[in-house]
Amino acid sequence: MAVYTEVSDEDLEAFIAGYDIGTVLGCKGIAEGVENTNYLLQTTCGTYILTLYEKRVDPRDLPFFISLMDHLAGLGLACPTPLRGRDGLSLRQLCGRPAAVISFLQGLWPRRVTARHCASLGRAMADMHLKGLSFPGRRPNNFGLAGWRPLFTSERNRADEVKAGLADFIAGELDHLEAAWPTGLPTGIVHADLFPDNVFFLGDQVSGLIDFYFACTDFLAYDIAVCLNAWCFESDSSFNVTKARLLLANYTQLRPLGE
Amino acid sequence: MAVYTEVSDEDLEAFIAGYDIGTVLGCKGIAEGVENTNYLLQTTCGTYILTLYEKRVDPRDLPFFISLMDHLAGLGLACPTPLRGRDGLSLRQLCGRPAAVISFLQGLWPRRVTARHCASLGRAMADMHLKGLSFPGRRPNNFGLAGWRPLFTSERNRADEVKAGLADFIAGELDHLEAAWPTGLPTGIVHADLFPDNVFFLGDQVSGLIDFYFACTDFLAYDIAVCLNAWCFESDSSFNVTKARLLLANYTQLRPLGE
Repeated sequence: MAVYTEVSDEDLEAFIAGYDIGTVLGCKGIAEGVENTNYLLQTTCGTYILTLYEKRVDPRDLPFFISLMDHLAGLGLACPTPLRGRDGLSLRQLCGRPAAVISFLQGLWPRRVTARHCASLGRAMADMHLKGLSFPGRRPNNFGLAGWRPLFTSERNRADEVKAGLADFIAGELDHLEAAWPTGLPTGIVHADLFPDNVFFLGDQVSGLIDFYFACTDFLAYDIAVCLNAWCFESDSSFNVTKARLLLANYTQLRPLGE
Repeated sequence: MAVYTEVSDEDLEAFIAGYDIGTVLGCKGIAEGVENTNYLLQTTCGTYILTLYEKRVDPRDLPFFISLMDHLAGLGLACPTPLRGRDGLSLRQLCGRPAAVISFLQGLWPRRVTARHCASLGRAMADMHLKGLSFPGRRPNNFGLAGWRPLFTSERNRADEVKAGLADFIAGELDHLEAAWPTGLPTGIVHADLFPDNVFFLGDQVSGLIDFYFACTDFLAYDIAVCLNAWCFESDSSFNVTKARLLLANYTQLRPLGE
């Protein structure tokens, strides 16, 4: 991740003048996040994130992402809140790209995941799932079951370069998954990218969820499965059952499974 | 520029506990600066820069840079101030690298240089030169006259790849410069890297000079020459005499040339 778009001072100051957040004191490109350009923006009113959406994000999806963050933050979820300009709009243009100013969340993403992180994550994820139920927008999951076969087909020839026999293994798995994929599981808004770098903590408590640019409509279990895989395995690939149990127990306190 | 060293939360919190600056609220890698790893660090006490010195900087030079910033900031120059830990030390180790916490300066570096920027820069540069006169440290300029011939010799074969005839041209220039280089010009601490990305402004006034990791002892005119070249030419390579006159006039108000 890097700064893809350099913003001149004049362009920045003119852009920020469209908001009610004072004048610019500083603006630093930050080396994190999805493949957008993110600046940490300091004004006389506080600290914000300025995001310029680069080619990776389909501009037609941006209203969905922005209104979802607005909805979740409005219900009290700790997540970035898109700021509205004086004209009432959250999504604007800067340097020829869609751009938004969003609230800044304090916290650190955990470089080393502990069981306490997993416990707090379970609760935060359930909270997000519940608050997403009242969101009216829908968006298909580009990286759900329907997306896997086209992805595999386009890259099949390279799979065996990674490991001999991998192409056949994936083909078999895909056949199995397409035949056995469940139907009728509880569906709603999923974050779909709940890896550690998208969850901020203060101490061992979640202080915010960020980066909703893969969010979509799918089985809620999709997020749970991502988290079990991304948070509950050790660097030697062993499964940490304590982390997984804490994650699920805290999740189900808020949102029992099977409902 | 990127984040070369990832710092775990535990390492960061243990490191910051060695200072009197509260507890960590956030820490983001910033995509600017020389080839060090820089984090924008937020604690319960304020905002700071955490720098991990990567291989580009010779660790033996670090005490010079740190004490120079300390000296200049102590005399009221707007430049990063290295913070001392509870043990009195400014230069410490983090993740196996030398590291320092320095004060955060508000401001923007100018993506588009105006004549007003040049005027304010002239004054700030003269102020730095004067405040450097009482600094006792000395360090040779690796990129002064003595450094150019070895650099040329090692890369001579590639010069004609850039432009036919360039190697001969540079060789001739070097002969001329070595023969005609002045002696006895006023000498002192020079920044030696005063490009626009190292000078912060609020509006059109300099709010700080940063990145002293090339600072050294040389003719003060070295910095002036760098600034005339880096700030006073337009993108079409034309010389902007208004910018140059303003830069020099404001410089000489504080430090007349020839003294």
